[in-house]
Amino acid sequence: MSAPDLIGMPLTAAAFAPYGEVLEASGEADLIINQGNCGRWHDRAALDFDPNGRAGISIFKARPRSLPYTLALFERHPLGSQAFIPMAASPYLVCVASDESDKPVAPRAFLASPGQGINIGRNVWHGVLTPLGEPGLFAVVDRIGPGDNLVEHRLADPLLVAGP
Amino acid sequence: MSAPDLIGMPLTAAAFAPYGEVLEASGEADLIINQGNCGRWHDRAALDFDPNGRAGISIFKARPRSLPYTLALFERHPLGSQAFIPMAASPYLVCVASDESDKPVAPRAFLASPGQGINIGRNVWHGVLTPLGEPGLFAVVDRIGPGDNLVEHRLADPLLVAGP
Repeated sequence: MSAPDLIGMPLTAAAFAPYGEVLEASGEADLIINQGNCGRWHDRAALDFDPNGRAGISIFKARPRSLPYTLALFERHPLGSQAFIPMAASPYLVCVASDESDKPVAPRAFLASPGQGINIGRNVWHGVLTPLGEPGLFAVVDRIGPGDNLVEHRLADPLLVAGP
Repeated sequence: MSAPDLIGMPLTAAAFAPYGEVLEASGEADLIINQGNCGRWHDRAALDFDPNGRAGISIFKARPRSLPYTLALFERHPLGSQAFIPMAASPYLVCVASDESDKPVAPRAFLASPGQGINIGRNVWHGVLTPLGEPGLFAVVDRIGPGDNLVEHRLADPLLVAGP
């Protein structure tokens, strides 16, 4: 293979903070409920929708990919955040980028581990859903409402993303 | 064991309809996105929160149980719906009941299969989160806001729930 342009790094809350939140049961629970049988990590996603939108839950089923992965497209949603919650313990790839003059710059790649969901901030550049194994099944909490909520940017030079 | 009071039945959208929605990729996708690589089953949960509440995403990690299971407590949330999205492909038990004069009646038990989440309607009686295997990890989309959103009803005669 060619030399990779990006290396998928472990997904951590600190590293992902510029782009959104990692949704996981890490550290102490905020609350212990159900007679001690359940921990609650409370309200961990910064849901952010425009006034004409509301939260909804959809199910996505995506074709599994493998590494190295060719990243050719970034997209972003100007009207709302978008959370991805894996419904199986399979890894997935998360590609994000910063913005400069309405273009994605400084791309980064993260590898989510079993038990990790993400919430991508409103208007943050990201790649499409990229499961790295079956079944590619995710619950998505994003903005439901009128208006055009998708901006795409195709890369003139696609990026090759490899594992660590 | 004693004779069971309830038998856990397969979780289907039709059987669960009086209590809420099953969140799953069943039937045709509503939309095909990402250049044909992903199906979207769109806006499948009837999120229902009081005017002082909003949607939030929390993570629950519950102690796995096994069948037969002793169901001793129902609870309900008068201010909002509550969705449970399993983050691993393990089954879990869903106990629900109808209401009569502010008491749970006509209890039913369902066994969720891998790939099935649920949204429990506002004020619908249900048992606590009951995973039937590790890791007992769920994303929960429920109502964040002020006020007392928990009503509990302890059963004078606990119910024994068995598998099919």
